[in-house]
This record gives sequence, C-alpha cells and structure tokens, in this order.
Amino acid sequence: MRMYDIINHKKNGNALTEAEINFFVSGFTQGEIPDYQVAALLMAISLKGMNDDETATLTNAMQNSGDSVDLSAIPGIKVDKHSTGGVGDKTTLIIAPIVAACGVPVAKMSGRGLGFTGGTIDKLEAIPGLRTDIAPLDFQAIVREIGLAIIGQSGDIAPADKKIYALRDVTATVDSLPLIASSIMSKKLAAGSDAILLDVKTGSGAFMKSLDDAIALAQAMVSIGTKSGRRVMALVTDMDTPMGQAIGNALEIEEVVATLHGSGPEDLTGICIIFAAYMLVLGGVAKDIEAGKEMASEAVTSGAAFAKLKEMVTAMDGDASVLLSGFAKAKHIVPLTANSDGFIFHMDAEACGMAALSLGAGRTKKEDEIDFGAGIILEKKTGDIVKTGDILAYLHTNDEERIATAMTILTAAITISSVPPHPVKAIQAFINEAGELIALGG
Amino acid sequence: MRMYDIINHKKNGNALTEAEINFFVSGFTQGEIPDYQVAALLMAISLKGMNDDETATLTNAMQNSGDSVDLSAIPGIKVDKHSTGGVGDKTTLIIAPIVAACGVPVAKMSGRGLGFTGGTIDKLEAIPGLRTDIAPLDFQAIVREIGLAIIGQSGDIAPADKKIYALRDVTATVDSLPLIASSIMSKKLAAGSDAILLDVKTGSGAFMKSLDDAIALAQAMVSIGTKSGRRVMALVTDMDTPMGQAIGNALEIEEVVATLHGSGPEDLTGICIIFAAYMLVLGGVAKDIEAGKEMASEAVTSGAAFAKLKEMVTAMDGDASVLLSGFAKAKHIVPLTANSDGFIFHMDAEACGMAALSLGAGRTKKEDEIDFGAGIILEKKTGDIVKTGDILAYLHTNDEERIATAMTILTAAITISSVPPHPVKAIQAFINEAGELIALGG
Repeated sequence: MRMYDIINHKKNGNALTEAEINFFVSGFTQGEIPDYQVAALLMAISLKGMNDDETATLTNAMQNSGDSVDLSAIPGIKVDKHSTGGVGDKTTLIIAPIVAACGVPVAKMSGRGLGFTGGTIDKLEAIPGLRTDIAPLDFQAIVREIGLAIIGQSGDIAPADKKIYALRDVTATVDSLPLIASSIMSKKLAAGSDAILLDVKTGSGAFMKSLDDAIALAQAMVSIGTKSGRRVMALVTDMDTPMGQAIGNALEIEEVVATLHGSGPEDLTGICIIFAAYMLVLGGVAKDIEAGKEMASEAVTSGAAFAKLKEMVTAMDGDASVLLSGFAKAKHIVPLTANSDGFIFHMDAEACGMAALSLGAGRTKKEDEIDFGAGIILEKKTGDIVKTGDILAYLHTNDEERIATAMTILTAAITISSVPPHPVKAIQAFINEAGELIALGG
Repeated sequence: MRMYDIINHKKNGNALTEAEINFFVSGFTQGEIPDYQVAALLMAISLKGMNDDETATLTNAMQNSGDSVDLSAIPGIKVDKHSTGGVGDKTTLIIAPIVAACGVPVAKMSGRGLGFTGGTIDKLEAIPGLRTDIAPLDFQAIVREIGLAIIGQSGDIAPADKKIYALRDVTATVDSLPLIASSIMSKKLAAGSDAILLDVKTGSGAFMKSLDDAIALAQAMVSIGTKSGRRVMALVTDMDTPMGQAIGNALEIEEVVATLHGSGPEDLTGICIIFAAYMLVLGGVAKDIEAGKEMASEAVTSGAAFAKLKEMVTAMDGDASVLLSGFAKAKHIVPLTANSDGFIFHMDAEACGMAALSLGAGRTKKEDEIDFGAGIILEKKTGDIVKTGDILAYLHTNDEERIATAMTILTAAITISSVPPHPVKAIQAFINEAGELIALGG
C-alpha cells in the first residue's frame, strides 16, 4: 500500500477502505508518512468528504493510536458529556453533580482553555488545593466511591488526532465535518464512557455558524458513536450569547454554586436541567426527558447535587469551604455602563470571551498563567431593556493595566438597538440515538 | 499575508490574486513556506482549478523564480517547439534542422529522459564527442552563426517549478491541468524564444488520455503564452503508437538521418513536415501552412536540412561522420515474431518504451547510465497485416541478460486481432494563436 494511492483515491472522490485509513493514521503517527502527504489527503477529504463508514473508521483508527480508559470496573452506565466549546460554559460543573446525585456515574476527562473559550479544568483549579492530574486508578476509585470525578486528560489519548489536528490547523482544513466529528469522537470514545451526550453549539460565537452545519455535525458524531457500540444523543444549542452571567474561572465557580443552590441565572439553570435530563435517560435511570427533568430539579432542590460537588472537590484535595464562603475578590472591579437607551440587540459571545481573556481569565498561549479572579459579570443579557448609564457588566481583574483594552473589546461586543432582537431558543434541535433530527426550536 | 489564508481562499473556490500567487511561489522557493502548506494548496488547486489569469500568473511567478535566457542578441523570430513527451519521439531532431535551413533560428533547451520516454539530449549524446552542456554565450554564438543549437537545460531555470513538481509527484497532484500547463510554460517562457509550437499528445500512451483533456491543456498553454506576449500555437497529436520505427538513442539518430535524407518512415516524415510548416508560419517566413509544407519538403529534398544538422553536430564538438557511416551495432539483435495471423490492432506505446528501457535504452533513476546502442526497431506498425512467424520487431542490446524481460514486455505491448483497428489521424486538433480549436482529425 502506498500513501500516494490513498491520496489519489480520495482526490478522485472514492471512499477509502478500512485498510487505507489504518495505514495512513498509523503511518503518520509513527512518523513514517510525511506531513506533506497527509496535508494533501486532509485537503482532499475537506473537499471530497467522507461517508459515515469512513468517518467511523477514521475515528477508531485515531482512538486506537493511543490509550483508552477502561471504566469497566465502575458499575452502572457511565455517561459522558461533550460540548463543542462556548464562552462562559460552566454547564459540566453543574450537570455532572446533578446526574451523579441521581445515581448515574460520571467519569469525565476535560480540557484546558485556549483563546476565548474557558476550560472546565481551569475553572476547577480556581479552587484552592484541588488537583486535576489524578492517576487512572485514583480516578476510578473516586468515581466508584462518590459517583463523580472530572479530571484533566491523562495518558496518551488519541495521539494521531493531536498530530492530525496540528496539521489541519495550518492547512485550512479545520472546518471539515468528517475531520471535526472524528477528532472529537476519537477522544470521547477513548475516554471510556458507555453513553455520551453531545452539545453542539451553533451561532455567531460557535464553530458551526449555521444550524444546518451544526445538525450535520451532530448527526455525524451520533453515527460514529452508534457504530462503535455507544449510546449517543446530541443537542444543538445556541451560542450567540454567553451562558449565564459569569465569564472567568472563580466567578464561574461561584455561579455554579449559586445554580446548584437554585439561585443561578434562569437561562443557565434551564439548560442544565434539560442536559441533566437527557443524561439521566442515557444512564437508564429516567424513563423519558420529563421524568429526567423532575429528577434533576429535585436533586437541586434537595441539595443532593451541591453535596455531590462538595464531595468531589474534597476527594480531589480541594478546599470545599470556598464553595460556600466565596473566593477572594479581584483587586479591580469596574463597571461598564450603557451609552444609549434601547434593547440589548446582540452580545458577541466570542468577543465577550476575548474581553475576559484580556482581563487575565485565560491563555493566549499554552504557557500563560491564569488570573483565577479575573473575568466579567454580565448584568444585562440579550433582549434586556437598558437606559443610558445602566450598568451592563462588571470587569474583574488583578491587573489595572488590562482594564482599558478589555473595556474597549466588551463595549464593541454589546449592540444596543431601538428594536428588540428576534428571540432564539437555547436548544435548537435534538438528534436521537437513531441519528434522527427532532427539531425543538427555531 | 498568510499562507493559511491563501490555502483557505482556494479551498473555498476563490481565484487567487497575483500578490497571493507571488507570495506562495517565492516563499516556497526560498524555503519560508513549509511543504505541508504547499501540498494542501496544490490539492485545493487540483480540485478547485484555476482560471486563465491565475494560471498565467502562476507561470510567470515560477518563470521569475530563476534565470531566463536572453535571446535578443540573435536576429529574427526565434521559434521553439515543445512536446508533452512520447515514445520514439525524435521529431525535434528532424524538425529543428528543417526550420533552421529555412531561415528561422532555433535556440532550444531540451531535457533528458526518465522512465519510458526518451530525452532529446540523450539521443544527441549518442553522437561521439558531442557536448550538450554549452555555456549561454557559446549557445547564442552557435545559433547566431548557423541558426540552430539544441542544448541541455543550463542555468537555474524555474527552480520554483522544480520544487513544486517534486511535491506534486508525491501528493497525487500531477494531473491538474493548470499545474501541468504552468509547469511546462514556465520553462518554455524562461527559454527565451519569441514563438512556441506546442505538441500535446493524447491517447493511451500519453499523459492526457482523452482528446478533450488534451485540447483543454493545449488551450490553457496557448492562453498563458499569449498573455505573456509570445506567439503560441498547439497541435494535439496521437500517441497511441510509437512514432516511426526506432526506439532507443543511436537507433533514433539513424532514423533522423534517414528522414532528413527523404527515406524515413512515412508517418514520421509526414508529421515532421507538418510541424516544421507550423513553425515556419510562426517564424514569419511562410505565409500559410501549405507554403510552409512546401518549404519544409524542399529543405529535405535539397539536403539543406541534413547539412544544418551536420553543422550543428560539428559546432557542438560532435563527430558528424557517424551520421553517414552509422553507429556501432549492439552486440545482440534479436527478432520478435508474430504468434498468430491478423492485423496489428494496437501497439501500447508506453509498454514499447518500457521494453526499450529494459534493454538499457533509458534510465529508471537519474544516475543510471544509458546503453546508447540499445533499443527496438519496429518492423510492423498498427494497422499492418501479419502472419505467424513474421518479424514484428528487432530488439537491440549489449546486455544479453536483458533480452528475456524486454521480449515479454514487448510481446504484451502488441495486440494482434482478426479485425483491423479504427484508423486514427496523427494530428487530432489544432489550436490557433487566438486559442480557438480547429479540429483536424477524428
């Protein structure tokens, strides 16, 4: 078998065989196939596509290029959740404790943030003492004991995906649907859960700008999961507006705690209950979504979900007392006020993320240190009525010099108009386990 | 400007700007842009195409990446000829002396052969003493004095094309029309002639298998030439059958001499007179093709064309006496006989070339030494009637061990059938200077 022929087959629009896909993935991972041949193939895949079987085969080849987590020692149906990334998206830290409190084990590996999106692991590390680099056996022990652990990616998960992604990033082949789907799913399958709920974002702040593209990606990922013997469902959600009010690590943990106490922002609470409900269905403890929502709400009201979060923080050596006492405030908290009357017509989620990043809440490169106290609290959200001088947001930072830039970015991110925006449902569509589209919003 | 954006533009089907094309060609030539990014761009060009302006811009950028030959010191309209390559194609060595004998200067750089196609320079080097590595000023002096020189490529001609071609060769992007057209034309423009006659081969033995593809390539190259201020015309010719009877370096030189003496094979003589006629029109000495054919035939009959070849060989330090006395014969000359009665239905030109290569007439890698006496003389050609035991061809070689393999290849290359083949015209189409298709054959 020659890489040349594999490239040529895809260039001519043919489906690649399992042997061809395994050949190029393993050859590239082992350094036997040069970058330039893989770059040519990735462009051919971008322009000619891949069918469902090819995409699933590529996913499995990338998964099998490294370690897979074995969660079989943990009883029950382990359910994972994946989001394609969002600004102010702390849903995992709310949903996972709810689901665990309802008896479905959650053993989750999460990533760090880079650029305008925050990472769940960074948010957790705002808690003093908490360790996220937990060894596989300790990870499993925690999940077995309390039903919940969220740790940083450990081991050599899908190294082929890492190499291929690095090449896509510099060859303009990032936005290819089969490449996105296989990249995400290779890591999710390697993470070992039995069932996966996917959250595919759409809108101006998301990778998938159009609803159609987001639905296609969701269906492709559900198909991959099903072909690999996992139970997978997907929700397509709006990302035109940041989720909740808080952006920034410690600020988001405080919002997580408030939400688990039943006093979080309405949009965030609503979507977390829905996500938890779907995961409870996947985990086999709720018979349908309505039943799942009831169970999830009850876990919040009873305090069981918050108790589960505390247990996890303690098990991971974190100081759980900070969850109730709150974090040290940033040195500088500066309001941004409205300069006209009207409706908040649009909040550019990506730009809000950039503003938080420029306050110190994130990284522009891997080595950057995070200011855990930095971030933004949005006092107004899309659709709200404002008058000149009303406070739109508070900017938090420990570095005074960062305020001016962040203020400029955030001001530009918020559009005030004399007309109200067209209302958008938070959940736009649902893809069931059969890959069928069940539209929910519009 | 970023290479990433250039790749992305082409991936999205946009035309690249002159600035973008110059950026990637000069950046890649200078080693500032990595292979993998250029590989991705080449695949995007392969699949999304390039319009005439982009192709011309790419050609000029590759031409300008290195030296261009300045022929302005030579009076008259210098006319060049380019063939997309063929088995047994010694036409340049017949046509150029004819054209030069008619007063049109020919200053030509030619290549060496690799694989199944022979190179004009290798054929010339079969002549004892002849040097093809002639310095630019000596080259011009010979052309000024006798009106004809055919030398090996000298100087740093289109280094960008060399680098890009090497990458195309391993990324399955060789057969992209704009990439083929710009690669050929960048070298032709750098070679400095005022007018160029292109010979685009079609058929099973050619790079362009279909007539439509060959015509499209011819039109693309005429368009590039015209946009660069050169006079360019193209003939699309059949390559289903080797040209003439001889394949192999010394054997082909003997056939060249015979043809210039008016006793060459009919197919070869006919096509050479036609090509010469078009070049005489381009060179401004014949008012039309008919007049050009008469001039060309007269140059053969009068002996002026053969005299011109002798002058050139002498000027290039070659022993011209061998042209009349003939070359030393190969040690082994073995006949291949027909094993059935019928018509020669098909001769696979590429396979005939492979058979000659396996006798020692060519190179499988650049470093190989050529056996100048090795090759094949075809005694029968497509359409001929044969009986069992008739001699189809003679195999010439100095290495007895090579005979068996070559015999097997050549036997398989010749198809004998009870039905005659559909006759194919040697010249299939003509593209005039305006890029208009004027069909000639069918």
